[in-house]
Amino acid sequence: MRKIKVELGKNSYNIIIGNKLKNELKQFIINANFSKKAMLVTDNNVEKIFCKDVLSVLKDAGLDVKLVVIPAGETSKSLSEAEKIYTAAIEFGLDRKSAIFALGGGVVGDLTGFIAATYLRGVPFVQIPTTLLAQVDSSVGGKVAVNHKLGKNLIGAFYQPKSVFIDLDFLKTLMSREIASGLGEIVKYGVISDAELFKYIEDNAYQILALESDIMEHVIARSCEIKADVVSRDEREGGLRRILNFGHTMAHAIEEASGYTRYTHGEAVAVGMIGAAYISKELGKIDNTSFEHLQNLIDKLGMVSRVDNCDVEHMFKSIFRDKKTINGKINWVLMDSIGKVSVVPDVPDKIVKSAFKFISK
Amino acid sequence: MRKIKVELGKNSYNIIIGNKLKNELKQFIINANFSKKAMLVTDNNVEKIFCKDVLSVLKDAGLDVKLVVIPAGETSKSLSEAEKIYTAAIEFGLDRKSAIFALGGGVVGDLTGFIAATYLRGVPFVQIPTTLLAQVDSSVGGKVAVNHKLGKNLIGAFYQPKSVFIDLDFLKTLMSREIASGLGEIVKYGVISDAELFKYIEDNAYQILALESDIMEHVIARSCEIKADVVSRDEREGGLRRILNFGHTMAHAIEEASGYTRYTHGEAVAVGMIGAAYISKELGKIDNTSFEHLQNLIDKLGMVSRVDNCDVEHMFKSIFRDKKTINGKINWVLMDSIGKVSVVPDVPDKIVKSAFKFISK
Repeated sequence: MRKIKVELGKNSYNIIIGNKLKNELKQFIINANFSKKAMLVTDNNVEKIFCKDVLSVLKDAGLDVKLVVIPAGETSKSLSEAEKIYTAAIEFGLDRKSAIFALGGGVVGDLTGFIAATYLRGVPFVQIPTTLLAQVDSSVGGKVAVNHKLGKNLIGAFYQPKSVFIDLDFLKTLMSREIASGLGEIVKYGVISDAELFKYIEDNAYQILALESDIMEHVIARSCEIKADVVSRDEREGGLRRILNFGHTMAHAIEEASGYTRYTHGEAVAVGMIGAAYISKELGKIDNTSFEHLQNLIDKLGMVSRVDNCDVEHMFKSIFRDKKTINGKINWVLMDSIGKVSVVPDVPDKIVKSAFKFISK
Repeated sequence: MRKIKVELGKNSYNIIIGNKLKNELKQFIINANFSKKAMLVTDNNVEKIFCKDVLSVLKDAGLDVKLVVIPAGETSKSLSEAEKIYTAAIEFGLDRKSAIFALGGGVVGDLTGFIAATYLRGVPFVQIPTTLLAQVDSSVGGKVAVNHKLGKNLIGAFYQPKSVFIDLDFLKTLMSREIASGLGEIVKYGVISDAELFKYIEDNAYQILALESDIMEHVIARSCEIKADVVSRDEREGGLRRILNFGHTMAHAIEEASGYTRYTHGEAVAVGMIGAAYISKELGKIDNTSFEHLQNLIDKLGMVSRVDNCDVEHMFKSIFRDKKTINGKINWVLMDSIGKVSVVPDVPDKIVKSAFKFISK
């Protein structure tokens, strides 16, 4: 078991990573001084697999729990779904010290976090991410949101959980496409700040794909440590936090151009990283060897590295609507080497378009 | 002109109070480094009176402003109204450094603040309160919210503005009932922490009702100072901030029992203060002289001090649903004297009910 502290002054919290975390979760609740009434939010897929176990831990810890099950999938990340959960919370009588637990992937975590951030102006929030992507990305860092019909994550907040419980046992229930999706973000942490992690993933690619516990604990813990460190130094995305966006500018454009359904977020990020590496190479920031290094690792892990049926002009226009675009200017996160990135504010349109062409089949 | 600083570390901001603040507002915008695109939210009453002037200041300061006009009244403080404003913001192309200005009373300020807190996970927010109640209460302190069909302000955040501009010229357009509503909160500041302010209001009651500028500047500034001081020491309502709730436990019950339309918030607070003073007297915390002192000032200012057609049992039950009630326990803010209050966690039901009877006509 590993414990990682996210240092955010009085908003600091721990991420617990390991197998069979029931007892840690129970002890945490007992020590946390929450109100008796609590809520557990999950989706109708996760409900079937893990809900009973987690509910029984919460009840053993003395909580009176209202279970809310949302439909699985991105469309649940909406204000109208949020409104239903507010209603359930009010009717059940949750108060300001009532904890809300999110059990599920990124959709459940983001939506539940948004509820926790805004119900009664903020109640305690606990993350129990069940997908690899949520474990290494969305459950750490305090970004919560719902979608608007005109774009993803446009309505949200920065709101930190009281704790995150990452149980490796959840991984065994995931489809390989979901694993690949999470691996995209793990590779990203290697590229942006840890050449050693990058090498570790290369050396252990097959053990990773086999989900060997020790190896997974290490790569997840290292990913969370890197994200926690960046978030500690820049909670509200003022500057440094931008490096976490490596691969994401193009990823968001790919997701938009493919209607948010054809590619998972992690898949889009993998392709977006190839695109960002391509731009880095075109600008002379990295050589072809580094570029191929990244390309080979993504292939080795069985991840997508090209998209099809995405219009280049559509994707190009979409990046100017990204919420990280300020006054029409895009801050590109580009590679200096494997293990180091920097922010480049201006990339010629021609190079950006050729990168979109490159990543299109 | 007076300037009051609300000390909240990197979230600190100034409240500017005076007549004809156009130039101050313009200079503030020029120095603030907002994006060019901005939004001004107001309601259809305020629009007719002040909107043109404020819009021209914003444009003079170099902003490209999208005007959003909401229907006046509490029903606009809803998630569905919020959704329309998000749509306008996205379509107009507001980015993370785009400022959103609230021009209006508490409804406009609370709703606009909620939008600013959650659009793109938070954009700069500027308050220009046009009612006395908003000037001394809702525009200071960072509480923003929308209502849920089951209760007021149940969905919200703590989100500080970048600045608050309180223009005394706005007051001349208010109806006397709106003035009285704001005076309720001003008297509250005297009761909870400043016997001198209480005496000043007594000595200048007629000048206050005549809205004399110097006198109003003083009582508004002193009110904002007291609120700013409390908020600085307890931004997220952990303890001390509770004292601002004096009169509000019963006020919320009155508002609920009267359908949120018959009494203004300020009127309900005036009656709620009489109720809290009554409880304080029944518990032997204050003598009858202090009680009558408060009753007389409220009468002198022409404010309501009793309600009719509100069922005592209904109001009594309602206080247990208040969002400040934790694990079923109510923290009553009661008087020790004029100028000092303290929190009393347990008041016998019998005394609470007799207080509700007392304030009912």
